[in-house]
Order: sequence, then C-alpha cells, then structure tokens
Amino acid sequence: MSGRRDSAGGGGHVAVLGAGSWGTAFAKILADAGRDVTVWARRPSVVDGIRRDRRNPDYLPDLRLPDRVRATGNAVEAITDAELVVLAVPSQTLRGNLAEWAGHLHPDATLVSLMKGIELGTTKRMSEVIVETAGVTPERVVVVSGPNVAPEIAAEQPAATVVAGTDAARTALVQASIRTTYFRPYTNDDVIGCELGGAVKNVIALAYGIATAMGFGDNTRAMLMTRGLAETARLGVALGADPITFAGLAGMGDLVASCSSPLARNRTFGEHLGRGATLEEARVATRQTAEGVKSALAVRDLARAHGVEMPITEQVERVCHEGLDPRIAVDVLMSRTAKPESYE
Amino acid sequence: MSGRRDSAGGGGHVAVLGAGSWGTAFAKILADAGRDVTVWARRPSVVDGIRRDRRNPDYLPDLRLPDRVRATGNAVEAITDAELVVLAVPSQTLRGNLAEWAGHLHPDATLVSLMKGIELGTTKRMSEVIVETAGVTPERVVVVSGPNVAPEIAAEQPAATVVAGTDAARTALVQASIRTTYFRPYTNDDVIGCELGGAVKNVIALAYGIATAMGFGDNTRAMLMTRGLAETARLGVALGADPITFAGLAGMGDLVASCSSPLARNRTFGEHLGRGATLEEARVATRQTAEGVKSALAVRDLARAHGVEMPITEQVERVCHEGLDPRIAVDVLMSRTAKPESYE
Repeated sequence: MSGRRDSAGGGGHVAVLGAGSWGTAFAKILADAGRDVTVWARRPSVVDGIRRDRRNPDYLPDLRLPDRVRATGNAVEAITDAELVVLAVPSQTLRGNLAEWAGHLHPDATLVSLMKGIELGTTKRMSEVIVETAGVTPERVVVVSGPNVAPEIAAEQPAATVVAGTDAARTALVQASIRTTYFRPYTNDDVIGCELGGAVKNVIALAYGIATAMGFGDNTRAMLMTRGLAETARLGVALGADPITFAGLAGMGDLVASCSSPLARNRTFGEHLGRGATLEEARVATRQTAEGVKSALAVRDLARAHGVEMPITEQVERVCHEGLDPRIAVDVLMSRTAKPESYE
Repeated sequence: MSGRRDSAGGGGHVAVLGAGSWGTAFAKILADAGRDVTVWARRPSVVDGIRRDRRNPDYLPDLRLPDRVRATGNAVEAITDAELVVLAVPSQTLRGNLAEWAGHLHPDATLVSLMKGIELGTTKRMSEVIVETAGVTPERVVVVSGPNVAPEIAAEQPAATVVAGTDAARTALVQASIRTTYFRPYTNDDVIGCELGGAVKNVIALAYGIATAMGFGDNTRAMLMTRGLAETARLGVALGADPITFAGLAGMGDLVASCSSPLARNRTFGEHLGRGATLEEARVATRQTAEGVKSALAVRDLARAHGVEMPITEQVERVCHEGLDPRIAVDVLMSRTAKPESYE
C-alpha cells in the first residue's frame, strides 16, 4: 500500500467513467487538484467536444475543462493502470457497466462512487453493487457525497463534500486528490450513512417540491426536510450507520441544497405532482423521470424489510405510484400521533 | 403533581407574557388547543386592540384571535393561578421582567420559554436565567423551539415544534396544551440542545444572508448551514447536550426555516452586511439590530470559555463587530485545514 500512497503524492492517473454534469465537474476538480484525468463518455460527440474544444457539449457547456483532462470513448483505455476509478454512471446502469469493466481494473485501484441511488429490485446501495460486481473488498470503495450542485462547482463557488471509506489511507488519498481552493473535502468512515443520505434526499426533495406547489411555507417545508432526515436516520441506524452522519454534509447538507435550488430535478418534478399532475404528465413536462421517483420504491422496500417506519417516503411513494392525492398525503402526515422526537 | 395533571385535562388557565409576533401566534395555538389564555402586553394599545377587535394591532394584525384569548396590561393578574406561564419577552429583558413577576407565580406553575438567545455578559441560556431569577427548580421550566415562523402559524400552515423539559409530566402537559390540527409538538428531554439550536441559528442565518448577498449559490449556503450546525453541536456537546438534537426540529429545522425565508430578520440583516454595509448602516436600513448580532458575541464568549472552535461564529462576530470584510471572512473559512467531519 505504501508504494501507491507515494505515487499518489505525485499525482497518479485517474479515470472518470461517465460524463454527465457531476462526472464532468468532478473531472475539473481532480485536474485543479493536480491529477491527470481521463474521462470516459458513451457518446462520441462528447469525446470529440472535450478533445477539440475542451468542453462537454451536453453538460455544463460553458465550462472550459483544464488541460489535464483528456477524453476517450474506450472505458478500458481509461481504466487501465488508473489508481483511482471514479464511477459516475446512472445508478440503475452501474451493474451492467461495471460487469464489462471489472476485469480491466488495476488490482489495487480505489473505486470512487459519485452515484446516489438504491438499485431497484435488490435494494442495494451503490457501493454494495460495486463490491459485488467488481469482486473487490469493501475497503477499496470510497464514496463522495455532499451538497455539490454541479454548475456551481463549475463556477468555482466554495463547496464542501464528504469522502467516506473504511480504509483510512484510501479515503485520505481521495481527499487529497480533490482538495482545491473552492472544494473542501471532509473525511468520514460511515459509508452506509453517506450513501443513504444521498439516496433518500431525492425522495424528500420530491416531497418538498409537492409542498412548495401546494403553497406551503417555510415552517412546513423545514418540518418536511427535518422529519425526512429523521426517518432517513432511522433507516440508517437499522442498517448500521452512525446517526450523526445525517446531520452532516452528506445528509442535511445535500438535502438542503437539493431542496433549495429551484432548478433541482427532484424538487421540480415534485412541483408538477403538487399541482395535480400524474406521474406520466410530470414525466412529459420535465422530459425525464426524477431519481427520487425510483428511489421512493426502493427505499420503501428497504425500510419495510428492516421494519423501519418512513411515513414521508411512504406518502411520496403512494403519490408517485398509486395516484394518491397530495392533499390527503399531507393530512395523513399531520394527523399521526404526537410523540417524542427521536431516531429510534 | 397528579392533581395539577388532572386540572390540565380540563384546560387550566395559561398566561402568555409578551405580545410580539410569536407570543401572539402562540396564544392562538393554546386557545385552538382548548386552553383559556390571558396575554399580557406592555402597550395599552395592544391590550385595547385585542379586547375590542380580537386583533393585536402591532403584530400579525390580520390574525383574529380566538375568543378564549383575553388581554391585560397587568402581568400579575395574568400570572396569578396560571398553571402555565409562557415567557415571550425579548431575551435581554427577561431577567428584569421576571424579577418583578417571580413573587406572583403559582408555587407549582410550569414556566414555558419561547425565547431564543443567550444573555449578554453572563452567557446564560434563557432557561438558566428563568431558574435563577424565578427561584424555581430546572424541572419546572419547559422550552418550546422549532421552525415556527409566526405569520405561517397564524395562517394555520402545518408546522411542528419541540417541547423540551426534564420533567416528563410537565413536558407532556405543555405538549397536550399546544397540539392542534396544524401544530405538531414533539417532546425531547434535551433542554440545553434545544436552546442552543435556537440561539446559534440566528448567528448562522446572518452568515447565510451575508453569503446570499455576495452571490454564493446553493452549495455554499448549504455548506454554511451544515457546518454552522456542526459547530453548534460541538458547543452543545461541551455543555452537555445530545448531538442528535441538532439534527432535529429545534436544530436543523429552525435553522433551515430561518435561512430560507427571505423575510427573516437575521438573514435580511446579513444581506445588508454582505453588500458592504457597516453594522450601523444595516441597523438604519432594517430599523433594528438583529438578534444574531448580539448572539454572535455571547456565543463566541461561551465557545471560548469552553475551548470549542466555532469558525463561522468567529467570522460573523468579526464582520459585525470588528468591521472585517466578508470576502476575507469567506477566504479564512475556505482555507482552513481539511479534516474529518465530526462533532468532537
């Protein structure tokens, strides 16, 4: 291990797999921190755009990528000999993608997950899918999660994030590889807590959007965020997470940023539902299905499997997938028995 | 005690001392929950307004108070035989007010604090000032704190709060006395944590306002809120609070509501400072001194006395009271050594 740590100081090669907005912004961070980066993009037009203009034409097109960022359409080329392999593909395609790539990983590469979701059907967290599919030990996986709206990172607005891993040396390596004047990474050893925070916040942001469109004010929305985080923490504790993680950047921080931004996808999708749109109408209006719509199902299943009560998630799932009127959902939430404020 | 609990079930008399916006909205909640309420107001015009029109002419004038709410200019009349005495006066005048009233309290009255602040000079929390000045045991004090922007409560928007006390029966009594269809009280035994959350959030809301006026986006502001809550929790742990409290309604919830509302006083005051105004200019523009300006001093003193690092509070104090340029404050905050995300 010590050999790799030394090479890290010199700035070993990093692969970023996926050139969506977060993958693209993350490549900039790595390069600004002094790392040589190869971004893999599925679309040839993206590879060409980065090679020719230093810009990703599809995401953050105003961002001129640093010279240390190269692009390739060949994932194996990006991965080979990479010390860090950053995974930034859609949550539900990770398993399929990684199955193709796993055989080409350096035997000591650290895998970095930027993905926020729970796999449908298996209800597995992204790091669990990585361990299973790549055939690596959990110590080799590091999760990065926090309030990191990509366009603001691209503009070098001050931001912070959490780097979570169970191997302190690998966690510190990732931290050092993304520390810049505008980006401040904090370490944490609670991988489960950080991943759950990122996955469930999409569901709570849907609820926030629904409440916003229904005309509810700051008290109601602060209550939704706080009680949403409380139920996330309850699930986390059942899965072995530290409840304190949810009060941090990967919990509260990410949730607050996702709810506050009027442009955030889950919030916007929720606003359509709050105005009475069906799931299909909201899909048409936003030209996508928000991540939280899928996560609501997966999180609900995970909570039920562990006997954890998640009333807000249950109501979001029912609004999304069972056509429940949001006004009834609010009544149900407010009429629950008053009880102690606790996480257990 | 059991006799008083029985009388509570029948809806004993409640005094609300202070007719600002929160005291007024709280009187409505109590009345809607079935309690008979007497509000004490310092100004005769407020007493007359409530008696004649069922409205407080100075605060929330659109709110028609329920018939169960009476008004008086005589605090002793309101207090005598009151089972619950709700204190809703300005933080820095509490000691002087309560010294006059203490001799008239019923010997088993429960004192309910709605106040969010730290006493300047003594650095005492409001419940400590109550215990000291009224000469009561700490068990007789119950704190109510949460995301409770008063105009939204007046409009009966769904909201939740925390009722914190060390005597379970008194805490349950207060909870039952303010439970309505639109207001949902949760109990908690962490008085210190709930009070600190309410006091420090005003300081963090100033920082949020400063950052907003400087053009920072959702990542930076979510980071400020989250790290602000983390330093609040560090101070809380040093004083004996449960760190989990800060992830709840009296911590994160109140902080989020105070930062999100463009009309909130501390945030607005901070926006003036962020645009380059001096403290005096901000005072003139907003026609008041925001609570967080005083709290920044008191909280900093408290933190130093306990050897707790509170970098955001330190910078807010310096911007407010030492004329520090907010741009330098941001640079200082971002250039601190990257470290583990933790509360200790």
